[in-house]
Amino acid sequence: MFPTYDVIVVGAGHAGCEAAIAAANLGAKVLLATMNLNTIAQMSCNPAMGGVGKGQIVREIDAMGGYSGIITDETMVQFRMLNKSKGPAMWSPRAQSDRMAFALNWRQKLEAHPNVDFWQEMITGVIIKDGRAKGVYTSLGLEIPGHSVVLTNGTFLNGTIHIGEKQFGGGRAGERAATGLTAQLEEIGFESGRMKTGTPARLDGRSLDWSKMEEQPGDENPGRFSYTDTPPLTDQMPCHITYTSQEVHDTLREGFDRSPMFNGRIRGLGPRYCPSIEDKIDRFAGRDRHQLFVEPEGRNTCEIYVNGFSSSLPEDVQYKALRKIVGFENAKMFRPGYAIEYDFFPPTQLQATLETRLVPRLYFAGQINGTTGYEEAGCQGMMAGFNAALAVQEREPLVLKRSDAYIGVLIDDLINKGTKEPYRMFTSRAEYRILLRQDDADLRLSPVADALGVQNMEQRMTRVNDKRAGVEAIQRELRNHSVTPDQLNNFLASKGETPLKQGVKLLSVLTRPGVTIEGLATAVPALESFLSRYDAETINLAEVTLKYEGYIEREQAAVDKMNRLEGIRLHNTFDYESLTSLSKEARQKLNELKPRTIGQASRISGVSPADVSVLLVHLGR
Amino acid sequence: MFPTYDVIVVGAGHAGCEAAIAAANLGAKVLLATMNLNTIAQMSCNPAMGGVGKGQIVREIDAMGGYSGIITDETMVQFRMLNKSKGPAMWSPRAQSDRMAFALNWRQKLEAHPNVDFWQEMITGVIIKDGRAKGVYTSLGLEIPGHSVVLTNGTFLNGTIHIGEKQFGGGRAGERAATGLTAQLEEIGFESGRMKTGTPARLDGRSLDWSKMEEQPGDENPGRFSYTDTPPLTDQMPCHITYTSQEVHDTLREGFDRSPMFNGRIRGLGPRYCPSIEDKIDRFAGRDRHQLFVEPEGRNTCEIYVNGFSSSLPEDVQYKALRKIVGFENAKMFRPGYAIEYDFFPPTQLQATLETRLVPRLYFAGQINGTTGYEEAGCQGMMAGFNAALAVQEREPLVLKRSDAYIGVLIDDLINKGTKEPYRMFTSRAEYRILLRQDDADLRLSPVADALGVQNMEQRMTRVNDKRAGVEAIQRELRNHSVTPDQLNNFLASKGETPLKQGVKLLSVLTRPGVTIEGLATAVPALESFLSRYDAETINLAEVTLKYEGYIEREQAAVDKMNRLEGIRLHNTFDYESLTSLSKEARQKLNELKPRTIGQASRISGVSPADVSVLLVHLGR
Repeated sequence: MFPTYDVIVVGAGHAGCEAAIAAANLGAKVLLATMNLNTIAQMSCNPAMGGVGKGQIVREIDAMGGYSGIITDETMVQFRMLNKSKGPAMWSPRAQSDRMAFALNWRQKLEAHPNVDFWQEMITGVIIKDGRAKGVYTSLGLEIPGHSVVLTNGTFLNGTIHIGEKQFGGGRAGERAATGLTAQLEEIGFESGRMKTGTPARLDGRSLDWSKMEEQPGDENPGRFSYTDTPPLTDQMPCHITYTSQEVHDTLREGFDRSPMFNGRIRGLGPRYCPSIEDKIDRFAGRDRHQLFVEPEGRNTCEIYVNGFSSSLPEDVQYKALRKIVGFENAKMFRPGYAIEYDFFPPTQLQATLETRLVPRLYFAGQINGTTGYEEAGCQGMMAGFNAALAVQEREPLVLKRSDAYIGVLIDDLINKGTKEPYRMFTSRAEYRILLRQDDADLRLSPVADALGVQNMEQRMTRVNDKRAGVEAIQRELRNHSVTPDQLNNFLASKGETPLKQGVKLLSVLTRPGVTIEGLATAVPALESFLSRYDAETINLAEVTLKYEGYIEREQAAVDKMNRLEGIRLHNTFDYESLTSLSKEARQKLNELKPRTIGQASRISGVSPADVSVLLVHLGR
Repeated sequence: MFPTYDVIVVGAGHAGCEAAIAAANLGAKVLLATMNLNTIAQMSCNPAMGGVGKGQIVREIDAMGGYSGIITDETMVQFRMLNKSKGPAMWSPRAQSDRMAFALNWRQKLEAHPNVDFWQEMITGVIIKDGRAKGVYTSLGLEIPGHSVVLTNGTFLNGTIHIGEKQFGGGRAGERAATGLTAQLEEIGFESGRMKTGTPARLDGRSLDWSKMEEQPGDENPGRFSYTDTPPLTDQMPCHITYTSQEVHDTLREGFDRSPMFNGRIRGLGPRYCPSIEDKIDRFAGRDRHQLFVEPEGRNTCEIYVNGFSSSLPEDVQYKALRKIVGFENAKMFRPGYAIEYDFFPPTQLQATLETRLVPRLYFAGQINGTTGYEEAGCQGMMAGFNAALAVQEREPLVLKRSDAYIGVLIDDLINKGTKEPYRMFTSRAEYRILLRQDDADLRLSPVADALGVQNMEQRMTRVNDKRAGVEAIQRELRNHSVTPDQLNNFLASKGETPLKQGVKLLSVLTRPGVTIEGLATAVPALESFLSRYDAETINLAEVTLKYEGYIEREQAAVDKMNRLEGIRLHNTFDYESLTSLSKEARQKLNELKPRTIGQASRISGVSPADVSVLLVHLGR
């Protein structure tokens, strides 16, 4: 009934959709299997993409031909660049999406790709022959043959929903859990665990008093995620801000004895940085209020997402507490918040390609690896999709380094350190974050994707080349263009800067904190005219790379040094027990995880710098 | 947690959505409860509204302020007036819809109604206090209080999906079944049964060879369902026609021994007029091919519905047979067809208001009553919604007679005759079908809804009054306007009609079969100019009522006679066993069903005209 697919992707959430597109963009014949074709690319939790550390990931996905950025641009209702008051390494784009439009748009784009086929059914097992993944079994008992399989099951594997003292099976509110896969994988020898995440109540926006809340508008000049020519955002919708109070906390506490979080019914760990409201009250007992973001679910619905109020307390407690929040006095619920427990597979069982160590041609991506977040899921899906296609094509795998991309940081963290709680990205996880900015993901990664042969990179590559040339031209201009005190001192005075005493190059003025290229252009008409041929992103990149030149060079030197170690390969078959000068823990962890390089070995928790030296000595360095 | 709602509607399919709107339009506070707010108003089977007998129902719903017509108009991709070569009683509008747009539009319109609230959860029981419905129980154990309850559970009650020898619980492909309600209702004393329906495979349109199929375009001047100012349809999509063959039938027969239809695994009866392909092959063994309509699922998807190929044969047999159909040689499936069995409640347990006889304030609508079809479901929902609201408001119920509307025929058939197999509407079910045309549903029913106080009837009533005045003016003009042989004989010759010998009124020419008002206008400039102030629908109605005046008058006389009987009330408490001159069967049925009127009694199967005479004598007539 089925041809033999190159890549079978199981699950059509953010990870599955990007996996399908990535493999398809490498020319692989892909089957996307999902329990329900009507619920592709759901935003199961908040209707937003991006944010700190996450926005960078979306731009990286886009730079490599993924669709998350384009679809967000085409369906967003609000855009904000977060952390603009901080350094450029911290700038993080974030968008509110129209949830339904986002999902529809994904489905349309997937259907438009000639290499992607679809099958609607629950997948219950992986076909394994000759020790390799060779396809999947379906709930009807069908066998779908494939040369590789990517599992992106999200929260569906044996999903259990908790609300107060009640619990029932489900992969998402109103949807069935997926069964069968975990048991099979455990039987083969995979270790699995349970994780937990949660979501807040959805409210009827018609019942809220917006006048009592603080309005949070989008940026005046909204940006975009994609490096392609997606349409600019017009007609933004505001979010709103309100707060909990002692009274709200007291009401919530009344339900603590019925909370599955506190009475031990939920065993899986939840996301530390996206805690439930009861968790926040419990852990930060001194705080007398918590901020809530009241987010629209879309342009054509009154459904409202209460960001910050995730809860698995009994629904009556949630309701009573919600109604004590300013602006929510008459709130009506569409459904209560809930916690969901699901199976994951500790990601230390993966290689850097996201292929499992145990079963070649079997890849895991997304929440199944213990991560949280659409962006984290999407980028894993993309990398798994690329690598599954590359393996089938018998080509070299694609592994991004920690200095290449947040995606590299994420996967390196996962496979080397593992995770006990849902892993989310932060800028602080990237040691080279001044090199991994949202403004240059295209320069960093589009050439990689293009060299790989990813389809439809033309527009992005043209732009990369124009941008790179533009940055160089602007920097040359600033280095060469002299200005006199007369020309600039009025401008400098207006910025509170000390005046020039003699003519200088524009570059030397730009290094002052309060001075921007845009500012200089207002004072120097020739510069303004010169800049008119470049777009804002190019001018911004020229400025950032000049102003932060020192930091960038220092980090690049550290990267170069690490890359020399990173490059030193370790053998899979080596028995570390024989190296008695290693610490006992290091020997154990190294034998367990079999890192591919010294760099990977150095980041394993329990492997000290002294152990790394022992390895280097052993390798003759 | 909840206010006491006037009307709680359980289920958000076509019946539930119309029920919510109908009650809300009478000012009732409504709660619409559904298992999943993301799957409101799904077209679970074919992406089309209307058709023979059904299109009339959609227009009737629209005439009374329901939304099915408006939403169809706003989201359709093709419109055809079926049976245009037959008499006006047979004309039936039919539209292909954009399935996703249809569902989204319904959700938006429901949210836009201030009287409709929403709750996402499975409803597991009806709260009954003092012998009346007083609300519902949810799967979380919540009690939602209400003054009335409308159940519209569709195929979800203990739904079981069959594909070949496999069967599993489910309310729809990829969705959970609903449990609990049937058991509770049976315990109270309701009789329940099982019915069966089915749906064909969905195909990937990209894999079909359209050039080998026959194109079926929409009407050149597409009409509309709504009597309001919905936008005219532009940019229609075609359907396609192909055929099965002996080879296809032979392939399907290979799976008959594994068919749940033939091996007795499915007990419920399926829809006679929408049989599965295996049923058609079995019942019409002499036919060497069956026609298939290949319908698009929407503007932005490649998903294809194969109308006429419903099947619960094993998926491999479906696939093998599909690939032998012309144009489907390389077809890829998205999912196989399946049969679904579900609980229904024989509708003889209902009153003419759709309120159950057993539990006051409890109403049933849609497939739960043993019907099939979106239109049949929608109109029952509307009537149940109206009557639930009217009951709560302590007002007279609304019952449409068989001579008022197809809706009246449908409900009268259901409650008096019951049904053993899914009931669908046909023009042949209406004995007064010349009175129940699609062209005058507004004149028949909008004044009824308006008198009831249904909201937002202004535009429709203005139009009804304009239309009625227009029809009268046009008819007057035709009656009074004389023409000479010189004026008309060329025109008549062109139509193959005998020439006039002397001057006559226009009306006398119009009664000739080949002559239309439009045709006359081409020959008589004064008429053309007179007509220019009226729209096509008004002119058409003037013509139909003139040309079919005789038929209409004859049917109206029959209706008047029946209404005199219809009006004679029977008492609920009367013991028919005491009337020994009634036939035994009549006594039994009358005691069982307790008809409210002589008219209802006369339509009970087993009650003969002789029995009716006995009743009339007994009542002193």
